[in-house]
Order: sequence, then structure tokens, then C-alpha cells
Amino acid sequence: MLIDRLISQIIAKQAPIVVGLDPRLELIPKNILDEARRKYDHRAEAAAYGIFMFNVGIIDAIADLVPAVKPQIAFYELLGIHGIRCYNRTCEYAKQKGLIVIADAKRGDIGSTSKAYADAYLGKSYVLSDGYEAFYSDFLTVNPYLGTDGLDPFVEVADKNDKGIFALVKTSNQSAAQIQDLMVGDQTVYQKVGQIIEDYASSRVGEYGYAGIGAVVGATYPEQAAKLREEMPSTFFLVPGYGAQGAAGDDITTSFDKHGLGAIVNSSRGITYAYKKEQYDDDFREAARQAVLAMKADINQALQRAGKWYGDLSNHQLKRPTE
Amino acid sequence: MLIDRLISQIIAKQAPIVVGLDPRLELIPKNILDEARRKYDHRAEAAAYGIFMFNVGIIDAIADLVPAVKPQIAFYELLGIHGIRCYNRTCEYAKQKGLIVIADAKRGDIGSTSKAYADAYLGKSYVLSDGYEAFYSDFLTVNPYLGTDGLDPFVEVADKNDKGIFALVKTSNQSAAQIQDLMVGDQTVYQKVGQIIEDYASSRVGEYGYAGIGAVVGATYPEQAAKLREEMPSTFFLVPGYGAQGAAGDDITTSFDKHGLGAIVNSSRGITYAYKKEQYDDDFREAARQAVLAMKADINQALQRAGKWYGDLSNHQLKRPTE
Repeated sequence: MLIDRLISQIIAKQAPIVVGLDPRLELIPKNILDEARRKYDHRAEAAAYGIFMFNVGIIDAIADLVPAVKPQIAFYELLGIHGIRCYNRTCEYAKQKGLIVIADAKRGDIGSTSKAYADAYLGKSYVLSDGYEAFYSDFLTVNPYLGTDGLDPFVEVADKNDKGIFALVKTSNQSAAQIQDLMVGDQTVYQKVGQIIEDYASSRVGEYGYAGIGAVVGATYPEQAAKLREEMPSTFFLVPGYGAQGAAGDDITTSFDKHGLGAIVNSSRGITYAYKKEQYDDDFREAARQAVLAMKADINQALQRAGKWYGDLSNHQLKRPTE
Repeated sequence: MLIDRLISQIIAKQAPIVVGLDPRLELIPKNILDEARRKYDHRAEAAAYGIFMFNVGIIDAIADLVPAVKPQIAFYELLGIHGIRCYNRTCEYAKQKGLIVIADAKRGDIGSTSKAYADAYLGKSYVLSDGYEAFYSDFLTVNPYLGTDGLDPFVEVADKNDKGIFALVKTSNQSAAQIQDLMVGDQTVYQKVGQIIEDYASSRVGEYGYAGIGAVVGATYPEQAAKLREEMPSTFFLVPGYGAQGAAGDDITTSFDKHGLGAIVNSSRGITYAYKKEQYDDDFREAARQAVLAMKADINQALQRAGKWYGDLSNHQLKRPTE
């Protein structure tokens, strides 16, 4: 089961970390872009090639350290058709390297349209009588604003193909509060959304007690995360907001359960553009590797301080009894 | 200004109607798919070509009758890279034919990511020192769950390039109520979202009193739409849910103001697959044309019955005084 594979990889690598691949052209090393320009006349094609080569470098540098990568599709759509091809190649390359791929696309629509998105990212389209995989990914982030009939198709397609989703519950940005924190009786909107997601998750738990139906819970709101961790015991959390967005190790411990499991923390710019620091002299691969190692130490030490250290537990202790 | 162009086209064509282009391969006429298969060996490429030829036929058949088309990108993503190319060609073709293009992609993320989406669909990406237009569209549908810092970039890019957005407020599906109708004090969540959108719109009104910052308000909830129409006087409504989703002419009148303006009604399957009715003998172009004419009559008669007939007003009467 996908979620068990993700969690066992987190334990094996001692890294509840996903590296976000959000390529910004202006931050890609000049020598890569120069090579891309020599190879392709078309500007967007050259840019997409440069980004792919950068992603390959990052993936090679971090594949043995972390269980997953998370490409943010917006930055690929920005380069049109060439960007989408680069997105697809990036996902395929990460898969080849044994990484779990979380497609950060925040899709969501009415049922029949969500079904098309679900098939595109987590399933197959039946094209001229045969199954065709449009894009490869293991997990897809989805937006819950349309309610369960917009979420059902993602869950169904995930069930069928051993894939997963992360639904937005409490996002990491400042204005998240404007809608998500509105009070509905004595609960917030995001708690109500959380309950909907937990309802899907609770009947789908794997060996570690978590389901492949997960939630996005921002690291920038540690107190709210603590409450959600209690209210959503079967839902695995994808935690953005670490690093460039401001949160540090001690802010993310509340997203984890008492065993130190139940969440994976994302960092994008903090890893991929670490090479901008002087000491790396533009060696973006080495810089990314060092940044992951530093993040790993920061998070693991914070979990230890919080009494949530998963590293000393045996698999036997971690796995919940199957009833 | 884009919104004035849209409204003046609605008046000139007497059609507050947008045709949704949501291609489902299984509903495309066999002769088109046969031709596509002869032309392309690759299944997804053939499928995408078939869909493009179908869209061209639909656009040719309805371009003189309606002001706009609305491709739903999910159905194109389902065919991967070939589908995205077909999506792009469809938007370009509609533009050539003088139609306003509403990209139905329901994008939305934290600010820096929303900026990438906004540039991809409504602006330009600055690729290797020159502006590159990833995808052509006039309006983009967006998801408001992340609040204003996720919406600001769309509004800014729209302002800069004379483009527009439609933010989800009250969607047409049944489970919309689960989150959107939650009560926050004496208001629903969707009213709170509506207020955020109206705040953007009120400072951006054009000659007819409406802004290019619009809202999605489902035809399937006429009473709620009436209230939103009052609460959001500057916000233009994109109204899904007509036809295949169940709403008829009399259900949509509440989305319009007293002059009979302020909204555009979408129909997708009801127009594009009208040819499945026996009398059309697979002539999908003629069937689409007749379906638009029937929808136009239905909507205009309903607006007349509701005392909201815009057809007899002169432009002078319709345009609000510029203060």
C-alpha cells in the first residue's frame, strides 16, 4: 500500500521530508541555462530543458536521502506545452530513481470534472479503447471547496490504483485565515473540512494506522496543527511552510503523532536554491544535499526534544495491530 | 476593457451564453475519430486531434451566436501532453474567431504559486529575457480557499493585461453546501467569499457597472443567487449548471440585475452533444447551433418574464453614468 511504502521509507531514511521542485528560471544556474540555449533555439523549449536538467541534478543529489519529491505544476505550466513536457519527464525521472511523486496541482471541480483530473494524475484515460497514463504521480494535492462530490472521484481513483491525495485543510499562507478560520459554531471551516477528510481516511488505514487520503496542514500554524492531529488520527499530513516560508523544526512537531509519525514536511526553495549561499560556489547538487541533511537534523532533533523520536522504535512497535 | 467587450457582445448577440468545451472522447462522432486514427498512429495524439477537429466544428457553428467559449482544462489534461496542445490550439482558434476565452481551470495556491498560474494563463512568463505567452485566455476561473494572498496575483496580472477572473463562490454541484453553506454568524461561507470578491470588483467597474473580477454562481441555487446578486453589485457572474446539470431558463434569472445584465450562463454537454438526438443524424455542428438558439430563446424569454429584458434598452440606457 502506497502510504505504508511512504511511511516505511520515512523511517528507513530517517527523513520525514519531501523536496519541492518549484523551478524558477531566474534561480537556475547560468551554466545550465547557457547549455540549454545552445541546444534549443526556441526560448521556452530551452528554458524547459534547463529546468529539467536542474531537476535531474537535484533528484540525483537527494534521492538516497528522502522518500519523495513534490513538483509544483504551476511553475511548469508557466512554460506552456514545453513546461508540461518537462513536468512529465521530471515525474518519470523521480519515479525511476525510486522516489514517491506528490503532484502539487491543487485540482478540484464538480464530480465529472474531478474524475477527469483524477484519471489524468492518478489513473488512466481510456483513449481509443486502451488505457493511457497522461501524467505519472503517486499523490495529488486537491482543493476541497466543492465538497465530497468533487472529492469522491479522486478517492475512488486513488483506491483503485493504490494512489493517494492530500486535500487542503489549513494552508501555510497568511490569508489562509480569511476563509479557513471562519467560525462555524465552535469549529473553524478548516476543522469541518478536516472532518470530511478524516471520514474518508478512517476506513482506509494501512499498517501504520494512516490512510493514503491525507491533508495539507501548514507548518506556520503549529497550535492549529496540534488540534488537527488529534481530530484527524487516520489522516497523514503534508506540511508546507518550512524554510523559505518561515517555519523551523520546532514548529512542525505538532503535526506528528506521539510516535513521531503521521506527517511529511516539504521544503522547496530552501533546498533547491541553497546553492546561492556563498560557500557552495554554484554547486547546486552539493548545496541541495547539505540543505537536506541540515533539515533532517533540525526536524529529527526537534522531534526528539518533543519526545516524538521514531528512530529508535522497531517496525514491530510502530505498526499498529491489524484488527 | 475586457468586461465591457463581453457585455457589449452579449447585448449585440442577445446571448448571455458561453459554450463549454469539455470534450469527452466517447461522445465524439465516429467519423472524426476514424479520420484522426488514420492520421496519427499514437493513440493519445489521434484522440487529441479528433477533439481539436470537433472543437473547431463547434466553434465554427456557434461563433456568430455567442460571445464566449469555456474550455474545461481537466478533459484536456486527461490526454497528457497531447491534450494540453489541443487545449492551447482550441483557445487560439476561438480567439481567431473573435470569441472571448474563459479558461476553466480553477487554479489557486499561495501567492508566489498563484503568480505563476496567473502569468501562465493571463499574462506572460519572462523566459530567457523575453515575454512568452504560455496559454491564451481572457478569463480564468480560480479557487478562493486560500484567501486574498492567493487571489491578489490573479487580480494584479488581470489588471495589467486587461484580463479577468471568475472566483468560485457558490458552485452548482450538490455537495457544494457541505463547505460553502456553513453558517458563520448570520452569513454563509460563500457569502463571506462573495464579499472578498466584491471588494476587488467594486473598485474596477467598467462602463456597464461590472468588473472583470467575477464570480462563479451555480444556476442550481436560484434563491442564493438572488441574494448574491444584491450583495455583489459590481461582480459579474459566470453561471454553470444550466442544461445537463438540471437548471432551466427560469432558474437563472435571479443571477441577472434589473436590466437583465450581470451574468453569463454556461452550457457544455447540452450544446456540444446535442447531435446525439435522433433528428440531427450525427450533424454535430447543426445540432450545436440549434441547441444554442433554443437556449437563447429559453433564457431571453425567461428574462422577459422576469421583467429583466435587456434587448430593448439602448446602449445609452444600459451604460451607467461614469462619475
